[in-house]
Amino acid sequence: MIRPSRARQRGFVVGVDLGASNLRVALASMDGSLVGKWRDSTKKTASPEVAIGQIRAGVADLLARCSVRREQLRAIGVGAPGATDASSGMVLATSYLGGWKNVPLRRALESALGIPADIENDVKIAAIGEHWRGAAGRLSDFVFLAVGTGIAAGIFVHGQLLRGIDASAGEVGYLMVPGTSETPVRRGEAGPLERAIGGEGICAQWRRLNKRQHSGAATPNATEIFEMAQGGNRSAQSVLKHTARILAYAIYNLSVVLNPSLFILGGGVGCSRVLLAETKSILKRYTEPAKPKLVLSTLREDAQLIGSVRLALDRANSVSAR
Amino acid sequence: MIRPSRARQRGFVVGVDLGASNLRVALASMDGSLVGKWRDSTKKTASPEVAIGQIRAGVADLLARCSVRREQLRAIGVGAPGATDASSGMVLATSYLGGWKNVPLRRALESALGIPADIENDVKIAAIGEHWRGAAGRLSDFVFLAVGTGIAAGIFVHGQLLRGIDASAGEVGYLMVPGTSETPVRRGEAGPLERAIGGEGICAQWRRLNKRQHSGAATPNATEIFEMAQGGNRSAQSVLKHTARILAYAIYNLSVVLNPSLFILGGGVGCSRVLLAETKSILKRYTEPAKPKLVLSTLREDAQLIGSVRLALDRANSVSAR
Repeated sequence: MIRPSRARQRGFVVGVDLGASNLRVALASMDGSLVGKWRDSTKKTASPEVAIGQIRAGVADLLARCSVRREQLRAIGVGAPGATDASSGMVLATSYLGGWKNVPLRRALESALGIPADIENDVKIAAIGEHWRGAAGRLSDFVFLAVGTGIAAGIFVHGQLLRGIDASAGEVGYLMVPGTSETPVRRGEAGPLERAIGGEGICAQWRRLNKRQHSGAATPNATEIFEMAQGGNRSAQSVLKHTARILAYAIYNLSVVLNPSLFILGGGVGCSRVLLAETKSILKRYTEPAKPKLVLSTLREDAQLIGSVRLALDRANSVSAR
Repeated sequence: MIRPSRARQRGFVVGVDLGASNLRVALASMDGSLVGKWRDSTKKTASPEVAIGQIRAGVADLLARCSVRREQLRAIGVGAPGATDASSGMVLATSYLGGWKNVPLRRALESALGIPADIENDVKIAAIGEHWRGAAGRLSDFVFLAVGTGIAAGIFVHGQLLRGIDASAGEVGYLMVPGTSETPVRRGEAGPLERAIGGEGICAQWRRLNKRQHSGAATPNATEIFEMAQGGNRSAQSVLKHTARILAYAIYNLSVVLNPSLFILGGGVGCSRVLLAETKSILKRYTEPAKPKLVLSTLREDAQLIGSVRLALDRANSVSAR
């Protein structure tokens, strides 16, 4: 059998969404079409070595299923939770996945898979996804705001992702607005905005309002509380209104600083239509110096995976351009 | 007499700092050296026509004094107070200079002086000055924060000035932090941060603390209050501490969003060493996710004039490159 030369082979890239609960791997052709997806749980992933092993398993499965040979792989892009320095390829710190500190993830991926790799923070990579295939539609200036257990933003300025001098630009879970705590935060603690209206913060609001009535009952999660608010529950409505107010102040502050074309809300809590409507109704009154425009993510839970494919394509193209 | 050809003549540019109190004009050679300065009051400047007339007078005076011929002028750059759209060359709105609305200042300058013109908001042009010749030393990412009667920031990201989709990026007088008002602002009103710690806001703090004791006495200005704080006056110390706390929160929020290399404090109130020291001592406790670095402007009141010369040089170079 005569093998086609490397130049004549069709190329493929791998995108990986490495999250606190799930690891998702996608195989894509060089035009960005997804040809296969794979998923595993990361709830028991206790070290970088285990994560790399899972990624290898996912890639092997996808290659076999899609009849793609390993030599056809051009690059891999990975979105990782926590503080990530894309330029050095390090995960600086994350409290997820058993807790990582200064993990040279890019190097580990390159030696495990034998292809060029790039990594990026999970929220920043979701912004890359929204820029490429989502609600941002290639806008040069927009903010992707992820509200889930954590809160962070992926910010595009002048057509480029904003990373900052310490790779911490967009860590808006630390924002202080009227109604949040003023107490300085220690390393590893959640920031003021996150403590107020991240998933945990929303549950804590509920517990404060229902101390006496439901001392034994389990706390509903943020999505359940927003549904109860729609159903007419007074405590839930109060939690929704407070959450929307604090979120509106954060978006307003971001708008004052950046004056972007668009805000895209994403994440497990942020994708709620009820929260979107309530936040918009508050923002309507805050029109100076500019009116922030706010929409929901269209890619939703796929934003990170699609962004990681884009990252891999960019890496592959930069290698072949040399 | 044989006149030298246009190509053999040395070129010059004009920079203008058009402020609420003063109009300053500088003549500079193409290497950026200042060869002459001129100044007039704008306290009675009631219209764009009057301002243009003053700029013409300044330019004529400088040409005569410095033995430069009008044909040697290549371009003019002007920093104007208020909302300015550099791309269209319009001053959108300012409450200074008798109140302007949608004034095509660039076109007016070009037809009055017969040379290419560019305009920019006064705080953004000061950031251009700090980037070129000041404390920012050509950093690609920094924030120039002007605290005076008004509060605004000139933000550099990826080596470029951030303007935003409505030219309102950096209008940080509108920021909301713990301790500022939550009331929505109407057009023409000062923003929450400005109302709390702009020049007027600082005086208002003083009056609230000294309602009974000094009902007849004149209110000292911000600089005088900070001096009294140094001298041991309790009310003044309280105003200083509150002002520094709110300012520290604003800087912290900007740092959370942008994670820039440096913050440069400028403006009549912001240039105070007492305020700098107090603000730094508060910021020392706010170290997550990054430690903001804060310095005073080195160009001080010259930042805008130097920035306007840079703007004119860029305009001249872009014309000759065509």
